[in-house]
Amino acid sequence: VRARVLGSAAGGGFPQWNCACSGCQAARAGRAAPRTQDSVAVSADGDRWVLLNASPDVRAQLEGCPALLPREGRGSPVQAVVLTSADLDHTLGLFSLREAQPIALYATREVLAALTRSILLRTLQRSTGQLVMHELALSTATPLVGADGRSLGLTVTAVPVPGKLPPHLAGITEASAGDQVALTVRGASRALAYAPCVASVSDLAGAFADADALLFDGTFFTDGELAAMGGQSARAMAHLPISAGPAGPGSLAYLAGLGVPAFYTHINNTNPILLPGSDELAQVLATGVRVAEDGLEVFR
Amino acid sequence: VRARVLGSAAGGGFPQWNCACSGCQAARAGRAAPRTQDSVAVSADGDRWVLLNASPDVRAQLEGCPALLPREGRGSPVQAVVLTSADLDHTLGLFSLREAQPIALYATREVLAALTRSILLRTLQRSTGQLVMHELALSTATPLVGADGRSLGLTVTAVPVPGKLPPHLAGITEASAGDQVALTVRGASRALAYAPCVASVSDLAGAFADADALLFDGTFFTDGELAAMGGQSARAMAHLPISAGPAGPGSLAYLAGLGVPAFYTHINNTNPILLPGSDELAQVLATGVRVAEDGLEVFR
Repeated sequence: VRARVLGSAAGGGFPQWNCACSGCQAARAGRAAPRTQDSVAVSADGDRWVLLNASPDVRAQLEGCPALLPREGRGSPVQAVVLTSADLDHTLGLFSLREAQPIALYATREVLAALTRSILLRTLQRSTGQLVMHELALSTATPLVGADGRSLGLTVTAVPVPGKLPPHLAGITEASAGDQVALTVRGASRALAYAPCVASVSDLAGAFADADALLFDGTFFTDGELAAMGGQSARAMAHLPISAGPAGPGSLAYLAGLGVPAFYTHINNTNPILLPGSDELAQVLATGVRVAEDGLEVFR
Repeated sequence: VRARVLGSAAGGGFPQWNCACSGCQAARAGRAAPRTQDSVAVSADGDRWVLLNASPDVRAQLEGCPALLPREGRGSPVQAVVLTSADLDHTLGLFSLREAQPIALYATREVLAALTRSILLRTLQRSTGQLVMHELALSTATPLVGADGRSLGLTVTAVPVPGKLPPHLAGITEASAGDQVALTVRGASRALAYAPCVASVSDLAGAFADADALLFDGTFFTDGELAAMGGQSARAMAHLPISAGPAGPGSLAYLAGLGVPAFYTHINNTNPILLPGSDELAQVLATGVRVAEDGLEVFR
């Protein structure tokens, strides 16, 4: 399995279009690495690829990665997309994968239903077979088949993780176990676990034990960092913060004890681990947990 | 009025994610200027800005233009968005203008209705006043007011132009005059006309006569260039080609006779005017018509 981080920022990216916080200013000034929105590309053979989530930045992400570009004529090496939720920062890029390109789409029943509610999906359904939707049963290894009908040499397993409904669905659909999942993608030799949004790890004790690497929710360092800018708390937004606080331990203690090489991803522009030399980044690195950047090859 | 081209490519951009035609290869190799998807920024004072269309590339477009970035804390200089149609390459960027930022949205009744059909719009309606929709009456100068409630010092006039419904709406809504418009944005001293998608100029004889500059549909050079790659003809896609053909004159003859400084924009990746040194580019330039690039300041 090859696995490459295409984007490592939370929704809005780093910098974020309407933000001039010290982190966003550092990114604009070249003092911190800019990041596009969370997405990962995986492949069994380096030839045909699968996107884990389709971020609003997908066009720039693909152009930045030669293996993901067409070699001649029309036709992309991207054969399939697997989604962890219906959040716009994980699905908006689907609507940029147009231009009559067949795509196999894998998601839970809940996420497929949410996508089907959007009239925009019709832009991917202009011809029979353009978008082929596959339902991911929970906690079951599903073999991935490309838009070309051939095996991709990978299985994916979706495990429910605590979260919350995307804002555009809140109040109109009922919360359900499959609204948000972590994915384990397994090839012949290795397995990548990917959990970009996680509200709590209480029920995830053994969930990633057999993964060879884990990309994990690093949205916020402290529970209150966005609230300090007028937003909600991390926990109210269904993201377990990295650091411990009055509400209990954070994700760093969990990851440090997991025994699996772990990387934070889906990092919000307010998170000080984005700033080289910060105390918070040092705290993370001291435990052996790393911080993903765009272009990181988790498995070469 | 200041006016800056943020993106000058048709839907899909240049290069396009699933295309390796000679043009896209040239863009990837640095032999032709890459282009993001069609959008323009205008401002009366250089301080508060209006986007004409919101492209899928909006995040990168704003980051590439310091005047459009926040100066401190939270809050964007982008006060309003005016749409020419409900096409995804002109509207998908709206869903990236999130993060609790108030936006004034101007469009025709038909385009507002189309947007409201999409469940995704709820992500911009999380709080009262986040998205304020203003209906543009046809052929009427409407003063633009920002999300902050203050005048932007500009008027915009929407004139119907022949086109076709976006693919995601085809077959479920009736075609109507306001589905696609050209815009004239007028400030104290100058007026910019913007017509990125035009199927025919038969009824547009005097439409842009009093503009100081015109950005016009340059999607295709010939009627058949996309058909040669397996797509539809330009006219079937509701784009008047630049060059004359069996079906009649193209847009170049129209623009050359207009007496208004004109630029092609919304240029498809298959269009040879994107290639420096091409005969087709020379034909355009010989008439005095120019070709927009990303970052072009039409009015400084």
